Amino acid sequence: MNAEKIPDIIIGRLPVYLRALQRLSEKGILTTSSQELGEIIGISAAQIRKDISQFGEFGKQGTGYSIPFLIERLRDILKVDRAWEVVIVGMGDMGHALARYNGYSNRGFQIRMVFDNDPKKIGQKVGEFEILDTTKMAEKIKQNKIKIAMLTVPAAAAQEVADELVKAGVKAILNYAPISLNVANGVRVQYIDPVAHLQRMTYYLD
Amino acid sequence: MNAEKIPDIIIGRLPVYLRALQRLSEKGILTTSSQELGEIIGISAAQIRKDISQFGEFGKQGTGYSIPFLIERLRDILKVDRAWEVVIVGMGDMGHALARYNGYSNRGFQIRMVFDNDPKKIGQKVGEFEILDTTKMAEKIKQNKIKIAMLTVPAAAAQEVADELVKAGVKAILNYAPISLNVANGVRVQYIDPVAHLQRMTYYLD
Repeated sequence: MNAEKIPDIIIGRLPVYLRALQRLSEKGILTTSSQELGEIIGISAAQIRKDISQFGEFGKQGTGYSIPFLIERLRDILKVDRAWEVVIVGMGDMGHALARYNGYSNRGFQIRMVFDNDPKKIGQKVGEFEILDTTKMAEKIKQNKIKIAMLTVPAAAAQEVADELVKAGVKAILNYAPISLNVANGVRVQYIDPVAHLQRMTYYLD
Repeated sequence: MNAEKIPDIIIGRLPVYLRALQRLSEKGILTTSSQELGEIIGISAAQIRKDISQFGEFGKQGTGYSIPFLIERLRDILKVDRAWEVVIVGMGDMGHALARYNGYSNRGFQIRMVFDNDPKKIGQKVGEFEILDTTKMAEKIKQNKIKIAMLTVPAAAAQEVADELVKAGVKAILNYAPISLNVANGVRVQYIDPVAHLQRMTYYLD
């Protein structure tokens, strides 16, 4: 099981499998099949079996997958069997929504600190967090060895903030600013741009 | 140019190209190359040339792409050379953030109405919008022939609301609830789940 050998497109589907399995588990369901999972997720059963088999033998022909076991393995593979500390930079509406979101805790993450550069916002509370000054960001990230940031600053500031985050040791950025970021090798960026998602669908509309 | 023949993975990259081109255009830049675009976006120049060539001949060898022309063509291909009306269902923190987001207008969309089922929220204002009662949602969507919805309700309610949206004529749903939706053929769903994006990155972290 070599991390470099599994295509990223497969890695991208594992969180979707894990999410569906965790929902089945919450309903008290203990086993599932690639067929059932495929119907829930909208991916073919064959694709699911192929993806999961990349990581070893999980299901038995005819008896399906043990949900608790597959959840445990996927959490292990994705390294979300822990609580990664995350910072949020940019406390506009989106930053607020992400700071107050309560869906991190059983999925591998916890928000640790939130930052903004606006003197009117610094010191204010967002949920349980006090908004900290971005001038102290690099220092605090280094001190706490934080590896993950969510970036919700305006597009014009995003690259500069990303550079600072990477310099401070951040290795994974979830970028909400509607621009592509340039980062060093070894740093991962994922993008959330609702308009880009909408545009991908309008192509198919009449 | 048959919509069904272009792989969806290519369609998914076009909004990223368009976004980068629009940013270059805002800076007053008139031409670009697949190399330059590739460096900005982090996709190989060959991939960009291949993707764009699916839709006809755009660039000339040696002179690159005309940015205004390529923007116009991509807007046309993605059908965002207009202003699609969009509803938001679920006026929690994320719904608020999306209602107040100001990045839709030159990218093909405008928020038309926002809904919630909480009597305490109905009638309140979010930016310029009054929160409407979800019991009137289907009727208003039909009346206004709205095709696109952003869904920011809790996971437990998402499938039921999606069913109602589709019944009312919605053909494209951007789903923020952390579950997979089952929808009829011909209805598109895109997912935004920040935790799934984070999990896709932790796989690569030490």
